[in-house]
Amino acid sequence: MPSRIGVFDSGFGGLTVQRAILAALPWVDTVYLGDTARLPYGTKSPATVTQYALRNARLLARHGIDLLVVACNTASAVALPALRAELAIPVMGVVEPGAAVAVRASPSGRIGVIGTQGTVASGAYQEAIRRARARAAVVARPCPLFVPLVEEGWTDAGDQVVRAVVHRYLAPFRSDGVDTLVLGCTHYPLLKAAIAAELPGVTLVDSAEAVAEEVRARFPGGAGGEGAHRFMVTDSPEKFLSVAGIFLGRPVEAAEHVDV
Amino acid sequence: MPSRIGVFDSGFGGLTVQRAILAALPWVDTVYLGDTARLPYGTKSPATVTQYALRNARLLARHGIDLLVVACNTASAVALPALRAELAIPVMGVVEPGAAVAVRASPSGRIGVIGTQGTVASGAYQEAIRRARARAAVVARPCPLFVPLVEEGWTDAGDQVVRAVVHRYLAPFRSDGVDTLVLGCTHYPLLKAAIAAELPGVTLVDSAEAVAEEVRARFPGGAGGEGAHRFMVTDSPEKFLSVAGIFLGRPVEAAEHVDV
Repeated sequence: MPSRIGVFDSGFGGLTVQRAILAALPWVDTVYLGDTARLPYGTKSPATVTQYALRNARLLARHGIDLLVVACNTASAVALPALRAELAIPVMGVVEPGAAVAVRASPSGRIGVIGTQGTVASGAYQEAIRRARARAAVVARPCPLFVPLVEEGWTDAGDQVVRAVVHRYLAPFRSDGVDTLVLGCTHYPLLKAAIAAELPGVTLVDSAEAVAEEVRARFPGGAGGEGAHRFMVTDSPEKFLSVAGIFLGRPVEAAEHVDV
Repeated sequence: MPSRIGVFDSGFGGLTVQRAILAALPWVDTVYLGDTARLPYGTKSPATVTQYALRNARLLARHGIDLLVVACNTASAVALPALRAELAIPVMGVVEPGAAVAVRASPSGRIGVIGTQGTVASGAYQEAIRRARARAAVVARPCPLFVPLVEEGWTDAGDQVVRAVVHRYLAPFRSDGVDTLVLGCTHYPLLKAAIAAELPGVTLVDSAEAVAEEVRARFPGGAGGEGAHRFMVTDSPEKFLSVAGIFLGRPVEAAEHVDV
């Protein structure tokens, strides 16, 4: 029995989440919506992000999806209750799965979280980690320059700008003595090598992998074959198509422009 | 006779343009709209930026303004024809005035332009400079990390991250031999000291000053006294109010949330 998963993100970063899902369940159909006309969400207020998330979810719900995955960390952090109240289908965010993996990965319970200003200010990761492990010591810090760095293609661990920015944001985590760091934004895994060089010995948690595991648990069957994938964006498809393949790890042939 | 000027920008950067206008004409009334729910414009397609610019302009036009100033370089670069076609009042952008000042300032005619991806890709500055001086040699390059740097408050010329990013983007202008550089984005003047340190001897052109001169030429009278100023934003007013004063150079007491 075929299943269809809807995925939305503020832009194309959520394609890393979709990539992990497709690696785990190659047979599912997907419908992806990138709200590229309104990105980024990470600097906007919870009310505005919730409004955008609801519009995205309504559009995807009209495509007959069985599950909605909110691939954007900021929207997962602030909009899940509103989405679950409105939609009749299950809604999964990236925060809970990422927090669960971090708790399992951390021997000491000293866990760091990095994300956008919106994600960190919401306290969503901090609360999810403490719900799973009451005595965890969580330190969360926003890293606003990481997304533009990745979008410039400046991700190499040896790049002088990358090293300076990564050091500025992450050096404080050394004094905190964290043994695990949650990469709480879809773009951050592309800086994994530079982050690992700054924080040697710290386990880096990519929420995309964690989400894929939970999705697989919901669809244990497995139909075989390859699913069909549809992509929609709110800004011009051309720009999306020029970078989508890098994030998804496979070619993206076509994307439609939609208004939400 | 009182005059009312409408100003819009994608966010709060346009307040540097309003600041220059108020320094030149302290007696005018202003209505400012920052489209903070959809910022930035610099990475979005011309069609999307034009749609947002039209919505902003319609809202301001309902406030009985005598002149619309498009403070955002990206919107000035791509949306002026559409705005002028629709509005019954004069519409002024920042590109033409900035280009005119650059041409007057450059002895050699070798002029550099920096701006967002949208501004540079539009070719608007390049065309405006060549219209004013046919033999000008114009080199334009986008600097996508400058806006997030400024929004982080990292602007000090001695800061290691600032120096590394400024060097990466601007070193090529040295080999180009430009004698004048247009700061084609409202945020860039806040990096003036760091830019000057990287390109010593190059004249830096701030479009905000150029716009203020042209606005003064349109309102030669001068009523005396202090005008009234109203501020509107599309995301939460709290965030806008926390930084508006820094960009405007005077306290901003209140801002209203509007939907456009």
